[in-house]
Amino acid sequence: MNSSVYVINPNSSQTVTAAIDAAVAPLRSVDGPGIVCLSLTEGPPGIQSQRDVDGVIMPMLRKASELEESAGAFVIACFSDPGLHALREQSRRRVFGIAECGVLTALTLGQRFGVIAILPTSVPRHLRYFGAMGVMDRFAADLPIGLGVAELSDEQKTLSRMIEVGRTLKSAHGADVLVMGCAGMARYRAALEEAVGVPIVEPTQAAVAMAVGHVRLSQAFTP
Amino acid sequence: MNSSVYVINPNSSQTVTAAIDAAVAPLRSVDGPGIVCLSLTEGPPGIQSQRDVDGVIMPMLRKASELEESAGAFVIACFSDPGLHALREQSRRRVFGIAECGVLTALTLGQRFGVIAILPTSVPRHLRYFGAMGVMDRFAADLPIGLGVAELSDEQKTLSRMIEVGRTLKSAHGADVLVMGCAGMARYRAALEEAVGVPIVEPTQAAVAMAVGHVRLSQAFTP
Amino acid sequence: MNSSVYVINPNSSQTVTAAIDAAVAPLRSVDGPGIVCLSLTEGPPGIQSQRDVDGVIMPMLRKASELEESAGAFVIACFSDPGLHALREQSRRRVFGIAECGVLTALTLGQRFGVIAILPTSVPRHLRYFGAMGVMDRFAADLPIGLGVAELSDEQKTLSRMIEVGRTLKSAHGADVLVMGCAGMARYRAALEEAVGVPIVEPTQAAVAMAVGHVRLSQAFTP
Amino acid sequence: MNSSVYVINPNSSQTVTAAIDAAVAPLRSVDGPGIVCLSLTEGPPGIQSQRDVDGVIMPMLRKASELEESAGAFVIACFSDPGLHALREQSRRRVFGIAECGVLTALTLGQRFGVIAILPTSVPRHLRYFGAMGVMDRFAADLPIGLGVAELSDEQKTLSRMIEVGRTLKSAHGADVLVMGCAGMARYRAALEEAVGVPIVEPTQAAVAMAVGHVRLSQAFTP
Amino acid sequence: MNSSVYVINPNSSQTVTAAIDAAVAPLRSVDGPGIVCLSLTEGPPGIQSQRDVDGVIMPMLRKASELEESAGAFVIACFSDPGLHALREQSRRRVFGIAECGVLTALTLGQRFGVIAILPTSVPRHLRYFGAMGVMDRFAADLPIGLGVAELSDEQKTLSRMIEVGRTLKSAHGADVLVMGCAGMARYRAALEEAVGVPIVEPTQAAVAMAVGHVRLSQAFTP
Amino acid sequence: MNSSVYVINPNSSQTVTAAIDAAVAPLRSVDGPGIVCLSLTEGPPGIQSQRDVDGVIMPMLRKASELEESAGAFVIACFSDPGLHALREQSRRRVFGIAECGVLTALTLGQRFGVIAILPTSVPRHLRYFGAMGVMDRFAADLPIGLGVAELSDEQKTLSRMIEVGRTLKSAHGADVLVMGCAGMARYRAALEEAVGVPIVEPTQAAVAMAVGHVRLSQAFTP
Repeated sequence: MNSSVYVINPNSSQTVTAAIDAAVAPLRSVDGPGIVCLSLTEGPPGIQSQRDVDGVIMPMLRKASELEESAGAFVIACFSDPGLHALREQSRRRVFGIAECGVLTALTLGQRFGVIAILPTSVPRHLRYFGAMGVMDRFAADLPIGLGVAELSDEQKTLSRMIEVGRTLKSAHGADVLVMGCAGMARYRAALEEAVGVPIVEPTQAAVAMAVGHVRLSQAFTP
Repeated sequence: MNSSVYVINPNSSQTVTAAIDAAVAPLRSVDGPGIVCLSLTEGPPGIQSQRDVDGVIMPMLRKASELEESAGAFVIACFSDPGLHALREQSRRRVFGIAECGVLTALTLGQRFGVIAILPTSVPRHLRYFGAMGVMDRFAADLPIGLGVAELSDEQKTLSRMIEVGRTLKSAHGADVLVMGCAGMARYRAALEEAVGVPIVEPTQAAVAMAVGHVRLSQAFTP
Repeated sequence: MNSSVYVINPNSSQTVTAAIDAAVAPLRSVDGPGIVCLSLTEGPPGIQSQRDVDGVIMPMLRKASELEESAGAFVIACFSDPGLHALREQSRRRVFGIAECGVLTALTLGQRFGVIAILPTSVPRHLRYFGAMGVMDRFAADLPIGLGVAELSDEQKTLSRMIEVGRTLKSAHGADVLVMGCAGMARYRAALEEAVGVPIVEPTQAAVAMAVGHVRLSQAFTP
Repeated sequence: MNSSVYVINPNSSQTVTAAIDAAVAPLRSVDGPGIVCLSLTEGPPGIQSQRDVDGVIMPMLRKASELEESAGAFVIACFSDPGLHALREQSRRRVFGIAECGVLTALTLGQRFGVIAILPTSVPRHLRYFGAMGVMDRFAADLPIGLGVAELSDEQKTLSRMIEVGRTLKSAHGADVLVMGCAGMARYRAALEEAVGVPIVEPTQAAVAMAVGHVRLSQAFTP
Repeated sequence: MNSSVYVINPNSSQTVTAAIDAAVAPLRSVDGPGIVCLSLTEGPPGIQSQRDVDGVIMPMLRKASELEESAGAFVIACFSDPGLHALREQSRRRVFGIAECGVLTALTLGQRFGVIAILPTSVPRHLRYFGAMGVMDRFAADLPIGLGVAELSDEQKTLSRMIEVGRTLKSAHGADVLVMGCAGMARYRAALEEAVGVPIVEPTQAAVAMAVGHVRLSQAFTP
Repeated sequence: MNSSVYVINPNSSQTVTAAIDAAVAPLRSVDGPGIVCLSLTEGPPGIQSQRDVDGVIMPMLRKASELEESAGAFVIACFSDPGLHALREQSRRRVFGIAECGVLTALTLGQRFGVIAILPTSVPRHLRYFGAMGVMDRFAADLPIGLGVAELSDEQKTLSRMIEVGRTLKSAHGADVLVMGCAGMARYRAALEEAVGVPIVEPTQAAVAMAVGHVRLSQAFTP
């Protein structure tokens, strides 16, 4: 087996890519598909606006095209799943989006999912996506922590705000499972779960787990 | 009053733009906002794939940016509403998508709307969009006429297929109003409506009508 | 062009009709359809109860019947859209309801719409209607300002309550667009929008804009 | 106990009222509430259009008002439930609509309900109502038998068409329970159920059963 | 007429069964079907967990099998409707679940139903069930009173908590009708309704009323 | 790492368990969690009825209890997910149901999922479950192949019927992804996918893939 799962972080931040890489490391096995995490050089430092989301699609498709031959599957590692359907159209490999997989995995862990977003402006974009996914009957709420880039570098503050928002999602909106609405924050997952008291889904892990499973199964059946 | 409604056809076809221009001509008034239809030079000849949809967003945003000052409203004249939310984010003007306005207008004309698509591959993209719009309880079906570019130039064949698909949407799927799932085909609307026997919404007309109304109202209240 | 858009206020209040007339004035053009606003003499002073809604249908149908020949379209200017489907059945012209058009227009301006109602007893009636429209996945909440007729004549108090309710719809229920759940209150729209910070739809304007567009288009194609 | 369940057939047909009376006879008990079926003199011979539905509301409310003192509950015996909410508003008694109760009872007998309508024009009206009821996820289809008044007097033809439509609802639309979309046709129920092979709900029986239960319970607890 | 409605309380508590018996007593008539309430000896003292729900199904089916010949209908008197579909499959009689009938009856009394649960852990189970019923568009919220067995024996405390939760469901979640999410608590119904100011459905009464109606109708038509 | 994924086939058929074992074999890795497939001795030879589904829950819970200490996760390998929530309640490990995971995985592969069931009587049970999952907006149809046990042993006949049903789901119901509504039939997956031309999800593989991913991730973070 030598096909790889390519995890494309569509922003240019190496720090985020490194965090993703650490988060999915346990999914690597000695006899399984490689998991390669990479940044999109052409992407912005962070993906915040709808314009950012739409703007990374073309370069992401080009990057994926270069990787096609050695790919077993692709994972788009941004919670807006930019270019998910364009890449599905372009590639002969399966393509997993972290928002899609994160939410679907959450549906196995609770009856009403909440989402912890970073910015308020992302919330309507998420809602459109959950509507397209047809899962609004399972949706509790999507609330932002509302921290800017500078504040996000303060880990204690970030965790505190996540816990605060998570508790509101649970107590005021009835969420019994939460999805982290951002890639690269797996390091907060355990502490957040402990503090809020409901399962927390880290979406990159959810997507890569499904991708690895797919590659193993497809290689077995198409030798 | 001198603010214009800019109707951006995000493909590069002047023929389609001319057809749109003819379709919305009745919405022009001597004392109302101008209605300017334009093609996107950078766009593909036609928008067929998800890649086409995503690929026109950035040039469309640039074009809209140039027009911003003289714009009263924008209409994105492609049934996949490419870049709708990115343009809403970028512009201080209201932005109307023809798919959104076409479907919403259909909801005033029947209880279950059907859509006549061009290509089969557009159907799941439309379904995702109707899900994001939250209107699936009103949805009958979306069926393609399945004609390629060459065949579409045969007007009689195109109309025949549209009528055939429209009748199936009505009789087998219970649609009592239909939306034309494409820009630039207003010339078929009356014949189609006559033949199928349910109201037919031409989406560019639906969107421009709403845009003109908005510009008139906003100019009156913010002189 | 000489077909008119008849805007029927199904209550008997000339004050309300005058307010509607002022609200839609910007939609008049020198070469476009007339817009004629009228009160229903047989209607109650205000429409508050379900009985009021149902009771105006027959006189409204009679009035519309008298206007049929010179009509290009009808607009029913009460937020419960009384008799909407009976008039659609009776008339050869298109019929627009302000609740339907107000909500549909709101769907182009935000992902979750809230409604500012006048009376608490109207709320379940609105909910039934939004359910019939199939838009509950986009619905945030519908909250009443709870003022009686006497208090409504106090404009400052009315605006204050509207702002208060609008802010609750935004902050506690996640609405990012609001619909005024009543005809004749367009004079509050700009101040309300300014104070709450989300787009506000005045439903009579929304409906008349769509009606005018329709008349222009239909006259062009059926000379 | 002397409070009565008043079953108001809002059309003027004594034949229909007699058929309703026969259908609900088994629900009478010697020590239970009376069940009084009556026609609405002011009603049309049959309720077919939306105008018919809306037109009977005011006379129905007046009739119910006269009966209020001796009423334990009201049943509106027309499948469009005309005036249901206006009567709920007016009366201190509970009010049951046969469409509402027929559909809700069907939900206890199968997972997807189909409706056998009389006229094609009733179908969108039913759909709006099922949407307002919020039960579209359980809805299979609503199909008309399409017989006019003259043909409906041919019982064999009527039953044959009902069976035909019932079988289509079952096989082509996946309905596993059917509701008769009309009052006064209980005499066909057993034969229809036998022929189609799924449970058939006669909506007047469903509504009166719930009304009788309510009157018994309310009298016990409010002596 | 001698067929009975068997009301099976699937827990072993004679106290609860006696309370159910008292609640449904007004539904007995001298010439109607008997109503026999019984406890399930093999059941737990109370049904609290999903394991309790699933664990009573097999003994309940055995008990129902013994009663089949003399049964006119069955009512499963636990708000999780354990074994509802298995018993429907096994029996030739109709089977009514109190949760299903309680919620459906609530849909005739208000536009958004709230549920007063006993334990927090029951809430997601209820939500799954309401989802399976397809009624989430009518759902306001489901909140627990959160009292343990010992506290539930304190009637004043139980009523106080029910009132508190009922008021929250009404004011914060917009419920305009409430369902008691438990069997055997009919004695609180009137006081709760009085205190909260919206209709309260006692689900055992709702189900038995429908069952009695069904038995009367089926005996009349299949003599 | 030594925690195992226990895949419990809740029927007693060793043949089915062996087929499951073969299907999930590619998901084993030398350094990953063991995957142990086992039959439930107390289960019926096949799970066909709701009674079968409910009847296996208690023995399945007992079996899972014995395995708890060495378990990393459980997979319930029957398309009705019997006891899913009872086991989630009982166990400290995550529990995956093949129907839930099969459908959720399908949502990443197409916009409307169809299900190939074995027996017609399973269809309403599946629909209730999809309703509880809140995914009916993505549902195309669920159709049975309708073969009895004897016929199922004829592999060619079984595959032919699956293909036939799959093609109907695609062409008549608009499904663009299919889920095999049964465990132990992975051997047909590739041929079915080839013949129908849409992705086919084998639900046991989908569930075990998610379970393996979870065990790897949880072991890494809770050493």
